[in-house]
Amino acid sequence: MNYAIIMFIIGCVIRVEALFMLLPGLVGLIYHEKSGLLFFPLAALFYSIGYLMSRSKPQNTRFYARDGYVVVALSWVVMSAIGAVPFVLSRTIPSPVDAMFEIVSGFTTTGASILKDVEAMPRAFLFWRSFSHWLGGMGILVFVLVILPIAGGHSIHLIRAESTGPQVGKLVPRMQRTAKYLYTMYFVLSVVQFILLLIFKMPVFDALCDVFGTAGTGGFGIRGDSMAGYSPAIQNITTIFMLVFGINFNFFFYLSTFRLRDAFGIEEVRWYFIIYLLACTAIFLNLKLVGGEQSPSLRHITFQVSSIMTSTGYSTVDFDKWPELAKNIMVAVMFTGACAGSTGGGIKVARFVLYFKQAGVKMLSLLHPRSVKVVKMDGQRVDDEVLSTLNNFLFIYCTIFAVSMLILAWDNMDFTTNFTAVAATLNNIGPGLAEVGPAKNFSQYSDISKIVMIFDMLAGRLEIFPMLVLITPTTWRRNG
Amino acid sequence: MNYAIIMFIIGCVIRVEALFMLLPGLVGLIYHEKSGLLFFPLAALFYSIGYLMSRSKPQNTRFYARDGYVVVALSWVVMSAIGAVPFVLSRTIPSPVDAMFEIVSGFTTTGASILKDVEAMPRAFLFWRSFSHWLGGMGILVFVLVILPIAGGHSIHLIRAESTGPQVGKLVPRMQRTAKYLYTMYFVLSVVQFILLLIFKMPVFDALCDVFGTAGTGGFGIRGDSMAGYSPAIQNITTIFMLVFGINFNFFFYLSTFRLRDAFGIEEVRWYFIIYLLACTAIFLNLKLVGGEQSPSLRHITFQVSSIMTSTGYSTVDFDKWPELAKNIMVAVMFTGACAGSTGGGIKVARFVLYFKQAGVKMLSLLHPRSVKVVKMDGQRVDDEVLSTLNNFLFIYCTIFAVSMLILAWDNMDFTTNFTAVAATLNNIGPGLAEVGPAKNFSQYSDISKIVMIFDMLAGRLEIFPMLVLITPTTWRRNG
Repeated sequence: MNYAIIMFIIGCVIRVEALFMLLPGLVGLIYHEKSGLLFFPLAALFYSIGYLMSRSKPQNTRFYARDGYVVVALSWVVMSAIGAVPFVLSRTIPSPVDAMFEIVSGFTTTGASILKDVEAMPRAFLFWRSFSHWLGGMGILVFVLVILPIAGGHSIHLIRAESTGPQVGKLVPRMQRTAKYLYTMYFVLSVVQFILLLIFKMPVFDALCDVFGTAGTGGFGIRGDSMAGYSPAIQNITTIFMLVFGINFNFFFYLSTFRLRDAFGIEEVRWYFIIYLLACTAIFLNLKLVGGEQSPSLRHITFQVSSIMTSTGYSTVDFDKWPELAKNIMVAVMFTGACAGSTGGGIKVARFVLYFKQAGVKMLSLLHPRSVKVVKMDGQRVDDEVLSTLNNFLFIYCTIFAVSMLILAWDNMDFTTNFTAVAATLNNIGPGLAEVGPAKNFSQYSDISKIVMIFDMLAGRLEIFPMLVLITPTTWRRNG
Repeated sequence: MNYAIIMFIIGCVIRVEALFMLLPGLVGLIYHEKSGLLFFPLAALFYSIGYLMSRSKPQNTRFYARDGYVVVALSWVVMSAIGAVPFVLSRTIPSPVDAMFEIVSGFTTTGASILKDVEAMPRAFLFWRSFSHWLGGMGILVFVLVILPIAGGHSIHLIRAESTGPQVGKLVPRMQRTAKYLYTMYFVLSVVQFILLLIFKMPVFDALCDVFGTAGTGGFGIRGDSMAGYSPAIQNITTIFMLVFGINFNFFFYLSTFRLRDAFGIEEVRWYFIIYLLACTAIFLNLKLVGGEQSPSLRHITFQVSSIMTSTGYSTVDFDKWPELAKNIMVAVMFTGACAGSTGGGIKVARFVLYFKQAGVKMLSLLHPRSVKVVKMDGQRVDDEVLSTLNNFLFIYCTIFAVSMLILAWDNMDFTTNFTAVAATLNNIGPGLAEVGPAKNFSQYSDISKIVMIFDMLAGRLEIFPMLVLITPTTWRRNG
């Protein structure tokens, strides 16, 4: 293990995070909140620590896949620990475990909250909480890569470990260029949404937080009723942008270079929209036929499905009160999630497409044992290595799910609550059903359960393997 | 597709089933139940039909894997349809869907019932219902193979499709010998249990039905309170024999040939007992610490875990009233299930062992990309083909699970009920939690939901692929 470069990169991450802490400080200044000024000395402190850690670039820049996983996982843990400090010191969230839960939920773009009264929180802290979505959505290491090409040719390991979904094709050959491109696109789309929201008269601060939560597919609301109190126009804009940020960014890359055929040829994107439309239609019918609503509100249905499927987690109605099928569909789209290469969470549509194709090939080989078929995606043959990782992913995912549920069960909450609490954190969604439904929060769990869910959120955001490498003892053996 | 041989084999299956229908007829005679005499004319009728179908052995005995899957799946569907007829004609279960649910639950050794008052049913029908467990447990096609070597050297496809779990090693080279050996062992163990139960003063009829349900890991009770009303000795004997019938039959083969080291060297069997002991211990602690019981009854805990983990489904207490962790552990062992090559259901311990090993190899390859490691089981390298089937199994299993839940959700029952109803049928367990808990039954579901669960029970018993081949359109194409 190359400890020198690991320390160097984490130092850079801390410096970047410290710089971003100036923003909530500014919010404190603007809104005359004394408590918000706390961010300034903290930013100075953490910048100094980061500076000490990354003062000189290490001589040896050799960097293996394992180091990549460790750097990414450690960066996220350290970044979260630092991000939690302002909440604890300001006593806005006095418990360190609660503060860690809240900020991990922020950075991993989950949006699950332990706050019972979100409106009581000063604006500087609301800003920091929502801004963590924006930073975590595209990835802080990707950001660090934009400003300094730290790991030379090996940075591919970093961007790989931090980006979402299975990697089937390559986007842009050079990693730094990719990182720059991704952040530019991300920034531009965020600005467009911000301007649209202002046009439809959303207050500036609310619009900013809305954009952070939408772009990062996070979902922290700054009001007790999430997005229910805003105008239909604002809700609809949010619906559309949640969907947009759940799309594979390759799509926008192709669009921006006028390769329309390539853009609309991405199988995952097509399935993403098919699943979205199917889910909305089924819920509409269920509300009409079983739920007894004459004409269920399309605005609410499209909003809720967009929010949960992209793993954002905003809400305009309490879908926990919907009939059972509608609720089950919401749980189902928690698992499918958004596209790979987006800011969204879940297992990802691309994985499901590959799982189905693989199962199809298997069925064919049962029927015609001598036929040889391969799994293809977007016209390209999918590597065996990718499929093997995919298959292990599913089992490990299910195992983490089951073990998390067993630990949460000690708190003696009901099955539905525990199941959807794990689903909502491991898939980085936000709300679940029953006691963790859209109108409730995660505060009633014990600290041990919260720590389990903190792990789940990080594992979900980093697609499991980096966190697994981090906690595997062999990783840390001298000769390992 | 070789339709001639498919028809021939199904004819044989029908003949065997018809002969076995004489047994409940005899029970009717003994207990002077008029309704039970119905089994005699039905046996004659079905024997004739079976005879007509299998009068002459087809010339062409060429037989491919695909034909094997189709024969096995079709046999099970036909056998169930025929087995349901007595219930419908006698009006003991008037609804055909209910009767089919009940007998499929019997043959697949699930033990989930739609009966609201089981004690009202005449003994001939109770016998038929319980006996279906015994027949389905080891497999009717395996039985047919014992009495006539129908498919020549190709019978391996039949025994493969009907036996449980992933096939890693080969038990005995010749298939007919294997089939004979399996049934002898099965019969001997059943007789031993029967004698033990009689020694401890269980009524003869009750003991017979208990043995059928235990040996087949089925779990239909003949009393409203399942096994709660019997003496502790009878309950403990049942606990032990449920565990015994959940063991990989290779174990008994090695024991019977005095290869003790081989017997106790089977990794799956060791893990089976480790999981069993862990589950019992955790439930004991949970009942003591959270459930508030001073000294939880070991007899009840060992019985319940043995019953659910082996997928039997008997109960002596209502575990739905246990605290949440204990209930979750029960749900977890529904999924692990029993050993491959036993009569038990679930995903099987062997599969889990392989999944874990595969994940371990993957983790190692992440840490040391250049190391080459293979998955081994009981000292032998596991074939890539076996692993690929295993991986597809997990995804298809999860998909069937999710789709079943979505269809069941139309009935608007709660999430816990639906989740455990699917878990209990797809894993061939019997009871679930909440509205399908040990003290409840499956009668409140709609016919559509029951049909879905009938499919799930068959898919679970035949390990998914045969049922999938059966419903795949390509299977039935002329040139397919």
